[in-house]
Amino acid sequence: MRSAIITIGDEILIGQVTDTNAVWISQQLNAYGIQVGEMVTVSDDAGQITNTLDRYMGHFDLVIMTGGLGPTSDDITKQTLADYFNSKMVMQPEVLEKITAYFKEVGRSMLEVNRLQAEVPEDCMVLINDHGTAPGMWFEKEGTILVSMPGVPYEMKGLMEDRVIPELVKRIEMPLVVHKTILTQGVPESYLAAMLRDWEKDLPDCVKLAYLPRPGIVRLRLTLVDNCASDADQILEKLIGKLLKIMPEHIFGYDDMSLEESLGVLLRERGLSLASAESCTGGTIASMITSVPGSSDYYTGSVIAYNNRIKTEILGVDPSIIEEKGAVCREVVEQMARGIRAAYGTDTSIATSGIAGPGGGSEEKPVGTTWICVQYGDRSFARKYRFSGNRERVIIQASNTALQLLRRVLLNTI
Amino acid sequence: MRSAIITIGDEILIGQVTDTNAVWISQQLNAYGIQVGEMVTVSDDAGQITNTLDRYMGHFDLVIMTGGLGPTSDDITKQTLADYFNSKMVMQPEVLEKITAYFKEVGRSMLEVNRLQAEVPEDCMVLINDHGTAPGMWFEKEGTILVSMPGVPYEMKGLMEDRVIPELVKRIEMPLVVHKTILTQGVPESYLAAMLRDWEKDLPDCVKLAYLPRPGIVRLRLTLVDNCASDADQILEKLIGKLLKIMPEHIFGYDDMSLEESLGVLLRERGLSLASAESCTGGTIASMITSVPGSSDYYTGSVIAYNNRIKTEILGVDPSIIEEKGAVCREVVEQMARGIRAAYGTDTSIATSGIAGPGGGSEEKPVGTTWICVQYGDRSFARKYRFSGNRERVIIQASNTALQLLRRVLLNTI
Repeated sequence: MRSAIITIGDEILIGQVTDTNAVWISQQLNAYGIQVGEMVTVSDDAGQITNTLDRYMGHFDLVIMTGGLGPTSDDITKQTLADYFNSKMVMQPEVLEKITAYFKEVGRSMLEVNRLQAEVPEDCMVLINDHGTAPGMWFEKEGTILVSMPGVPYEMKGLMEDRVIPELVKRIEMPLVVHKTILTQGVPESYLAAMLRDWEKDLPDCVKLAYLPRPGIVRLRLTLVDNCASDADQILEKLIGKLLKIMPEHIFGYDDMSLEESLGVLLRERGLSLASAESCTGGTIASMITSVPGSSDYYTGSVIAYNNRIKTEILGVDPSIIEEKGAVCREVVEQMARGIRAAYGTDTSIATSGIAGPGGGSEEKPVGTTWICVQYGDRSFARKYRFSGNRERVIIQASNTALQLLRRVLLNTI
Repeated sequence: MRSAIITIGDEILIGQVTDTNAVWISQQLNAYGIQVGEMVTVSDDAGQITNTLDRYMGHFDLVIMTGGLGPTSDDITKQTLADYFNSKMVMQPEVLEKITAYFKEVGRSMLEVNRLQAEVPEDCMVLINDHGTAPGMWFEKEGTILVSMPGVPYEMKGLMEDRVIPELVKRIEMPLVVHKTILTQGVPESYLAAMLRDWEKDLPDCVKLAYLPRPGIVRLRLTLVDNCASDADQILEKLIGKLLKIMPEHIFGYDDMSLEESLGVLLRERGLSLASAESCTGGTIASMITSVPGSSDYYTGSVIAYNNRIKTEILGVDPSIIEEKGAVCREVVEQMARGIRAAYGTDTSIATSGIAGPGGGSEEKPVGTTWICVQYGDRSFARKYRFSGNRERVIIQASNTALQLLRRVLLNTI
């Protein structure tokens, strides 16, 4: 089954609002094996809505449309659909009852515009909205199902879950599409592609591969379509097994897991505590780790030493080293990592010192130069990196690299 | 001038990634008076890209396309465009030089896939990418300008700002549209709307107002269209003057300024230093402050005390208070703010302690309860808040509120 999503709303076209409905709907449809072939955003304009319908009706099996169903004069979707399907408006008593009850409950008087929300085109199946006053509508024509819902995210989500998905499940046999995402850290996209060339060449025809880069992280998404779906899990397992042999040390998780969650799982399993000492990353490592609920079980905290005096006074870095070599060098991160473990009494530690830019670079230490040290037990591992991009990207890459370094030291893969 | 935006990427159609490029591009185009008529997301599929081009070329004046220009095998946009425009691929020496220099600078060896990124269709104008290896491309046909850029947001933004906008400004006569955004913190959107009812009623016809909320922050965007543009600056100045009378303490800046920049400007002007002591915000305040280049001039650092032992041992919080009242109370944040000033020797400080959730709430202290204290000289100001939303939203609202509280104490507006 192939689908398309139409979002109606000027506020999106002028860049005032990001369309989060379409991505949520596509997650739901994909979970049921319904492929989304196209997403489009159009204006609150009858002509444009009609043109888009002309293009999609008969070409997709399912079209999901959101927006333009409110009670005000700029909401024209319902009338446009009535015209498109040559269908006259009729009052739906069940919907009117719901709207009347709603206004009674919130203690507001009902206006004529609210009453008119209970009118829908005669040819549609009404989808009762339990979370608001605008009903959803379900049309079928030319082999295409067209669903129209309000654009308010929580009303739309309620309608999808309560009405649309159950109707779809009843009517169609869903083909299996399986997605699996492998998360890697530490290898840039083009290197990864070179490293995986043979593996990629051997992919079965029914498997599609996509590289999805983020600063410091590349996600590899495998998509398995229905023609080899009967043993989908086995196929994926085998492919991932081969990947794990090629680059065991760079894979930190699967699907929606974050690097900070993956590190958290490991620390929790081992019963280990962690503290960080951050200079150039300025709290980003701490805020990533603490974004995970329950992280206080293993994360003790951090010292952000943005000033060299804090590095020496609080973390015990030897001031003569800073004087001699500057704050961005191996000895300083090693002493920061040792100092924070001593001060916070933790099993493991992470320390960073670098030049995030845009200022502060030199020929010897250009912007992006970063020293990272991680410690665990009697192991201390320090390495110099050179990250590219602007200040924000340098900080994120340094933070991701530091988290992965600690994982690798814990797992003994470095 | 009418435009359309095409986003290419399976990752968006399967709901893995929200398309933030399209909304950003449409903000830029709208700022120059270029209307966006349609946005569409299509698959990394040559047929679908070609169909979409067929539909848009000749119908819009400008088509902006992002995605599918990476070095890996799933990136097919460039070849599809070459085929569409019957244009053969040629090596662009200037681009090759840039890519070679890039790899030399980051100290990595260049692969064949990277070298091939310097090839572009013969018929296009190359848009040099200063932020990555994939160049942008500018085609003109059937009265339509087609621009193709990589989907990596910061590369795309760089290309838009450095190349595309200047080219557009050269070629077309832009109608004057003036935007001015007023940034407020501390008043929820619906309260703000009530507070500004009269001011809003008096807005001239040529001025449009939009409320743009973010967690803890509401931006008020005024848009002035060309029919009264001759005295645009005067009109805006007068409107902002009235706003400043209504809510002087809540406005922290204009346009693209961030709250952390605004605080930084104030600290720098006064020659004051700052340190923070964070519990529930877990480093987010530190990472916001240090996201500003040059913040090391006034920001000394932070102690993230995720564990109560750190609050007592490092920050000197009285353990009997934590035992008696818990870590989320007035006394604890006051002692944290005092402790970090003493430890880091700064003029001002910020301290937070709260329940970010989802766990840890109680009837007396539900999730979202947060105590914040700011100190400057002999002033200490502490207040309890109750933020709503998930863990991430609670943390961001608490961080924004804390930064604004310190601004208000420095400015004597609280």
